[in-house]
Amino acid sequence: MDASDVLSLCKRRGFLYPSYEIYGGVAGMYDYGPLGTAMRNNIVEIWRRLYTLGEGFVEIDSETVGPEIVFKASGHVDEFADKMVKCRSCEEAHRADHLVKELHPNPSILKDKELDDLIRTRGVTCPACGGELSTVEEFNLMFKTVIGPGSGRVGYLRPETAQGIFVNFPNLYRFNREKLPLGVIQVGRGYRNEISPRQGVIRMREFNMMEAELFVDPEDKGWPRFNDVKDEKLKLFANDGREMELTVGEAVEQGVICNQVLAYFMWFTQEFLKSIGVDGERLRFRQHERDEMAHYAADCWDAEALLSFGWTEIVGIADRGCWDLSRHIKFSGVDMTAFKRFDTPHEVERDAIKPKYGLLGPKYKALGAKIGKALEATDPALMENNAVTVEVDGEKHVIGKEMFDIVRVKEKVSGVKVIPHVIEPSHGLDRITYTCLEHAYAQKGDMEMLRLSAAIAPIKFGVFPLMARDDLDKVAMQIDEDIRYSGIETFYDDSGSIGRRYARMDEIGTPYCITVDYQTIEDGTVTLRERDSQSQVRVNVKDLPLVTRAVLCGANIDQFVVADGSE
Amino acid sequence: MDASDVLSLCKRRGFLYPSYEIYGGVAGMYDYGPLGTAMRNNIVEIWRRLYTLGEGFVEIDSETVGPEIVFKASGHVDEFADKMVKCRSCEEAHRADHLVKELHPNPSILKDKELDDLIRTRGVTCPACGGELSTVEEFNLMFKTVIGPGSGRVGYLRPETAQGIFVNFPNLYRFNREKLPLGVIQVGRGYRNEISPRQGVIRMREFNMMEAELFVDPEDKGWPRFNDVKDEKLKLFANDGREMELTVGEAVEQGVICNQVLAYFMWFTQEFLKSIGVDGERLRFRQHERDEMAHYAADCWDAEALLSFGWTEIVGIADRGCWDLSRHIKFSGVDMTAFKRFDTPHEVERDAIKPKYGLLGPKYKALGAKIGKALEATDPALMENNAVTVEVDGEKHVIGKEMFDIVRVKEKVSGVKVIPHVIEPSHGLDRITYTCLEHAYAQKGDMEMLRLSAAIAPIKFGVFPLMARDDLDKVAMQIDEDIRYSGIETFYDDSGSIGRRYARMDEIGTPYCITVDYQTIEDGTVTLRERDSQSQVRVNVKDLPLVTRAVLCGANIDQFVVADGSE
Repeated sequence: MDASDVLSLCKRRGFLYPSYEIYGGVAGMYDYGPLGTAMRNNIVEIWRRLYTLGEGFVEIDSETVGPEIVFKASGHVDEFADKMVKCRSCEEAHRADHLVKELHPNPSILKDKELDDLIRTRGVTCPACGGELSTVEEFNLMFKTVIGPGSGRVGYLRPETAQGIFVNFPNLYRFNREKLPLGVIQVGRGYRNEISPRQGVIRMREFNMMEAELFVDPEDKGWPRFNDVKDEKLKLFANDGREMELTVGEAVEQGVICNQVLAYFMWFTQEFLKSIGVDGERLRFRQHERDEMAHYAADCWDAEALLSFGWTEIVGIADRGCWDLSRHIKFSGVDMTAFKRFDTPHEVERDAIKPKYGLLGPKYKALGAKIGKALEATDPALMENNAVTVEVDGEKHVIGKEMFDIVRVKEKVSGVKVIPHVIEPSHGLDRITYTCLEHAYAQKGDMEMLRLSAAIAPIKFGVFPLMARDDLDKVAMQIDEDIRYSGIETFYDDSGSIGRRYARMDEIGTPYCITVDYQTIEDGTVTLRERDSQSQVRVNVKDLPLVTRAVLCGANIDQFVVADGSE
Repeated sequence: MDASDVLSLCKRRGFLYPSYEIYGGVAGMYDYGPLGTAMRNNIVEIWRRLYTLGEGFVEIDSETVGPEIVFKASGHVDEFADKMVKCRSCEEAHRADHLVKELHPNPSILKDKELDDLIRTRGVTCPACGGELSTVEEFNLMFKTVIGPGSGRVGYLRPETAQGIFVNFPNLYRFNREKLPLGVIQVGRGYRNEISPRQGVIRMREFNMMEAELFVDPEDKGWPRFNDVKDEKLKLFANDGREMELTVGEAVEQGVICNQVLAYFMWFTQEFLKSIGVDGERLRFRQHERDEMAHYAADCWDAEALLSFGWTEIVGIADRGCWDLSRHIKFSGVDMTAFKRFDTPHEVERDAIKPKYGLLGPKYKALGAKIGKALEATDPALMENNAVTVEVDGEKHVIGKEMFDIVRVKEKVSGVKVIPHVIEPSHGLDRITYTCLEHAYAQKGDMEMLRLSAAIAPIKFGVFPLMARDDLDKVAMQIDEDIRYSGIETFYDDSGSIGRRYARMDEIGTPYCITVDYQTIEDGTVTLRERDSQSQVRVNVKDLPLVTRAVLCGANIDQFVVADGSE
């Protein structure tokens, strides 16, 4: 099995279609077909509910086009670039680091000059035509556009959904009644104008993300439920080269994972992935190399799935420190701090200015009192050349040291402003969806099947009449409609042999099939067939409202067998 | 009440935030806050299920960036423009038709020259500064970008989701086993680079759509369930000036609505809108004026809601004929027809070429037989200058009339190729969401509330302890968690008086509140309070799993009152 088998099944059966195929397609773009969309919606809904109902996060939905300053602040205008070389003959563009991946253990960390040297000295040429390659240049990966008429305002398609959460922090903090922690999720499109996209849905120019941003007190990186999961295991591949299985608790105690909240959400991510059918045996957490990690990140782990492409990042979980909010504070000038209230007010000592009102009055007349007040509010640390500058009624006054004393005062403060730190589990939804497909893919003989978990399967029940006549079709259609109207996805099929119909359902991952046959007319029972075990039992039609729900929740089909009707 | 009241509540309570507010905002862009996102997700999910589980449509999800040819084919590159004037003093851009809306009954149909004349003769000036206005120019409303590195390939952000469905028609038709009707939905972003956006979320540069494209046999515009709804009523405002209430059946019989399937989906749209809380009294269908309708449309109706802005289009429902697929056939060269199989094969007569093999053999030797076959497959209508051209083994041969006869043949054909017609219900999701908010908005004294339908309310239950002590808070937290884990959104609140907490929940449209008090500790009952009636009953904590679900499905709270515990 390789990726082309899976992608070919996906295309043939309606999970994924190359975008704009009738116009020859666009590299790095895929559309989700009917089954892919339904399956992806299921994944999103499970994830959303785990974070919102389970962990108390809130969800927002922000715009995908943003003005330049947002991405100046985030660093994307200056930093979000790949190193590109162009062929001097055929003009095709390539990612320089991809061309040397056999020649260096981690080419993504090489500088332009180092890449150039490697390309020259090792004689790397254009993979398309063998032509000579240009020197390396930086290509910014954001799609650029213009907002509004005329020359308008430069805008970009967001490279990640996260910035929409960061810029809304003041609103969201208010929504959360000015308390930390504050967890926010967003599901939506991200854009990355890849130089030369490859690997199907693994590297797309337009992709789907599920991002969570958890704003925490910088001095409190615990998590209330940490203790509940501290004995759960994680497979860790640390950046000191050690590959190990540790409990969540051990990983934090031993300093392998830098804090509780990061470790908790690594576990949370693992459980989410397993719950939708990612194979735990093909899942690990790899810590970023020191030189791979963003300079501001305290720690960063990728959840990697083993795919036919090799180990592939599907979720990144980072402690981003105060970087994101600090940058937006700097670029917007808006106070984006949180106020950390002490349990009881703290008494603190500090230096303060004590004006000599006896001198200010005579010198400044009516303004004297106002200048005195302004002096009191001024930090003595701002003194320059034995004077401080205060502003009164819009005018500045330089007040010399002779006009005030500096005294030590005690005062009570109820709290302190902090810039929250951000813990970010960022999910590549397309990669996760693809991982579920590849991990579910199996071949038996010349048949293919998807052992998708019932939770994400796009169709839950195939419903068939043994024959499309003698009222069997009418009964089956009624059953099909009843199940659909109860909110469960079905597929009615009356064409071809029953075996073929089962095979078609296996191929798209449908976990259960219901067949109406002549016995149904006699005794009101149908065959319920399970995909993975291929076992079949007879159940009562009138029990189907219960049975359909129960088996989707994991109930064994055997318990619904009618007393004397089993096959 | 006007829109600013509603928008102010939306901002304050976390339904909608102006995008990029910390950077001064971007006109025509709004983010959905936690409550707005949850509410909009609920609307999407109801809509999705009505179309998929209810009517058998499939859902796809296509990319938002597309190459130029797609929008050449769709007509957007040439036609998707607004008429713009710029102020010669302050340089602000305005929509020309908006500036003359007091001077003409329907300025959107005016040509450039007519608008220019109206502006000159009536002395219209810049609304911002009173300056003189430029002549009218066309401004294309698509956001433009470049796909790939270097000069790349021109791309646009899609102005509607529909094109992603049309270009996938061959894939989707195959998915549907080459049968019509084929219904497809898509939910996602659309982009429209408005010249000067106004009116909050009514006219956004980046907006959310829910579109359905139903591909039907051009000769069969019926719908299986039409008869089930033919006695249901619609409020119609036809383009002949008549405003009337007709049944669905009457509207089609009288030719007011052009066919059954269009009428069915107008009714379907009405029921969807009412189910999510749009006020039926403030809802009507307005038929497009003849000169407002696209030239290819057979009929087009807007579902309009009465808002504080006036009657506003929230859904457009059109019979688009074969326009969309025809255009993509023309631009892509791909066969996008459907094959309409006859019940029994039809016998047809046609002209055919009958080769004279006795002459071909001697002249063309070994190729003779192949040329003969190729001639048989050639339409005699393609004859030019008494000869036809056939291609054999990659080479072209011009075969003169002396080498064949034209004969009349009879043959059986099993069907015919047709270009499907498209019925399109296209929903403005932001406008629908806003309509739900405005129609639910009420003031009582200086309090505001949202009477949102329980189905779309972002929070279903407020859960309060009377006091945050004496274990009342612990019990309330447990109830809150139990309800959340059962999949229902709650909000736990222990701050301020109970009256204030109710008021806060009323303000965000929470339909029910549960209060834990001292009696709870004694007899295991809590107060269940309904928002709209403000009635309160005591119910058993142990019944909450049932009660919470039942009331959300419309059950009256009175039926759950415990025998001797009512207040």
